[in-house]
Amino acid sequence: MNIDMIRAAAHRIEGHALRTPLLRSPFLDEIAGRRLWVKPECLQHTGSFKFRGAYAALSALDPDLRARGVIAFSSGNHAQGVAYAARLHGTSAVIVMPSDAPALKMENTRAFGGEVVLYDRDTESREGIGARIAVERGLTLIKPFDEPEVIAGQGTTGLEIAQDAALHGITSADVIVCCGGGGLTSGIALALEADAPELRVRPAEPEGFDDVARSLSTATRQRNTATSGSICDAIVTPQPGDLTWPILQRLCGPGLVITEDEALSAMAQAWNRLKIVAEPGGAAALAAALYRCDDIAGDDVIVTVSGGNVDPAMFSRALEKL
Amino acid sequence: MNIDMIRAAAHRIEGHALRTPLLRSPFLDEIAGRRLWVKPECLQHTGSFKFRGAYAALSALDPDLRARGVIAFSSGNHAQGVAYAARLHGTSAVIVMPSDAPALKMENTRAFGGEVVLYDRDTESREGIGARIAVERGLTLIKPFDEPEVIAGQGTTGLEIAQDAALHGITSADVIVCCGGGGLTSGIALALEADAPELRVRPAEPEGFDDVARSLSTATRQRNTATSGSICDAIVTPQPGDLTWPILQRLCGPGLVITEDEALSAMAQAWNRLKIVAEPGGAAALAAALYRCDDIAGDDVIVTVSGGNVDPAMFSRALEKL
Repeated sequence: MNIDMIRAAAHRIEGHALRTPLLRSPFLDEIAGRRLWVKPECLQHTGSFKFRGAYAALSALDPDLRARGVIAFSSGNHAQGVAYAARLHGTSAVIVMPSDAPALKMENTRAFGGEVVLYDRDTESREGIGARIAVERGLTLIKPFDEPEVIAGQGTTGLEIAQDAALHGITSADVIVCCGGGGLTSGIALALEADAPELRVRPAEPEGFDDVARSLSTATRQRNTATSGSICDAIVTPQPGDLTWPILQRLCGPGLVITEDEALSAMAQAWNRLKIVAEPGGAAALAAALYRCDDIAGDDVIVTVSGGNVDPAMFSRALEKL
Repeated sequence: MNIDMIRAAAHRIEGHALRTPLLRSPFLDEIAGRRLWVKPECLQHTGSFKFRGAYAALSALDPDLRARGVIAFSSGNHAQGVAYAARLHGTSAVIVMPSDAPALKMENTRAFGGEVVLYDRDTESREGIGARIAVERGLTLIKPFDEPEVIAGQGTTGLEIAQDAALHGITSADVIVCCGGGGLTSGIALALEADAPELRVRPAEPEGFDDVARSLSTATRQRNTATSGSICDAIVTPQPGDLTWPILQRLCGPGLVITEDEALSAMAQAWNRLKIVAEPGGAAALAAALYRCDDIAGDDVIVTVSGGNVDPAMFSRALEKL
C-alpha cells in the first residue's frame, strides 16, 4: 500500500469518478470559528466516495477475472459503488445483503445493475454464502475497506484535497474524515503524507461507535461493543481493519467523537448553507468541525461529507434542527 | 457585450467563484431518455449563479467608485450575490427590499454584509427610493440582468460547460437554462457561441410566466400578465431585458415550459439522485429535461440547476413527490 498505487488509481478513475470541488459558506465559517472547506463526496456517483474505491478495484483486476464478475457483502454504500462500477466495466456484480436490509437500498443496488442475493442474518453466514457463490461462479471478492486497491481509490480524494488546498493557499489544517473501517481515512492520509504533509487527518465517529478514536488514544486496536443501532450506519464497523489500522496509527489522530444530534444538525446546515444532501454518517466530520471546534486548531479546517444516501423521513428529522 | 468580456470576467472571478462540475446519475438518464448532465449552480457561493454576475460587476468597477459602495433592488438571489460580492471587495452594499420580503432572505442578505433598506410595495417606488439613496451616497447600481458585466459574469457558466462538454466528448446537445430576465441564458449562449457552437441554448420557464418562450416563438418581445404568484419566484420577471432579448433572439430557443408540479418533482429527483438542493425556479431546466424529453433531441442534454435558496416547508412539499 503506497502513494504510487493511489496515483495509479487516480489515473484509472479519471473521467469516470466525479472530481469534486471544495465548498464553502461564510455562515459555516462563523460557526466553525475558522475557514471551513467541505469535500462533498455525496455528489460522487452512487452518492458516496465508495464509488472511487469500487471503480479503482474493478479497473485493477485482470480482465479475464473481471469478466467473470465480482461479489461484495454490503447493505449500503459499498454495494451501490461496486454494482455501478461493475456495470461501467461491462461485468456483473453479486451483492450479498441481509434479507432485512432497507427496500430502497436493495432497489438501488439492483437498479445500478447488481444481482442481490439475500441471506437470513439469524440463521445464515454471509461469508459462507458469499464464499460458496464466489467459488461456484469464479467471482472476485471486493472488500469494503481492507483491500489495497479500494484504499488506493478512496485515497484519490486526498490527492484532490491536496491540490485544492494548495490552490487556496491552505498551508496547515486538520482534515476531518468520516471514519468506519478506515478505507477513506487511511487512503486520504497516505495521499496527504505525500502531497500535503502539513495537513493532518483526524477521524470523526459517532458516540458509542468510536473504535478508531479509542484505538488511536490507546495505541491498541479496540472494538465497538455494539455494531448496529446508530443512525450513522454508513460508518459503523466492528473495529479498524487489518490493513487500515497501521496506516491510521502512523498518520492519523486524535479522533473526534460527535453525537447523533450533532450529525443531524450538521445535515441541516449542509442543506441550508451548502445545498448538499448528507446522510448522518456522512455528516460526522462536518459535525465535528462545527460543534467540536475547541478541539481543533488553526485557521482552516477541511472535512469530507462522505455520503448522501438517506431516506426522506430521516432527512426531515434533520431539517427540524434548523 | 461580447465573448472577450466573458473571458475577462472568468479571469476576475477565478478563485473567488466556485468552479462547479457536471453531475450525473444513471437514474436520471433513464427518465430523460438520454445522458443528462447537470451544472449545479446551487452550490455556488450564496446558493445561486447570481454570485458570478455580482462578483464580475463589482470587480469591473473603477476602484474609487467601488469604494463608495453599490446598491441593488432584489428580494432574492441577486441581493445575496451582490451583498457577498461587495463584502469580498471590502465595500458596502445597500439592498432595497420590499418590507414584506421573507424574513429569511432579509436575514441572509444582512448576514452576507448587506444593508437592507425596506420600502412599502403599496405606497413607495423602489426605483425612487433607490435613486435617492444612490445619489445621496454616490452608490453604483448593480442591475440583476440588464447589465453587460453581470451578463459577462453569468456567461462564465457557459465557458465551463463548453470545457466540460469537450472533456466528455459531447459534440451536440441542448443546454437548458432556467430563465428569468435572461442574464444567465444570454451569457451562456454567448459563451457557447464562441467555444461550443454545436451546443444550443434553450430557456426553461414555468407555465404562466413563459414570456421568453413566447417572445422567441413570435419573434417579438412579450410580457407576462402576472409578475408574482409562482413558486418559481427566482425566475419570474415581467419580460426579457433590453440587453438580453437581442441575444436570446439571435442564439436561443425554442423555449421549454414546465408546470409547478414538475418543478417540485425535479427538486425531489435532484435531492434523491444528485444529492443537491434546488429551489423551484432553479429546478425548471431539470424538470424540462426529465418531463419534456419528447421536445428535446440528441443523445445528451445539459441543464443548469441555477439556485437552491428554498425554505424547509417548500422543500418538504417537493420531497412528497418521491
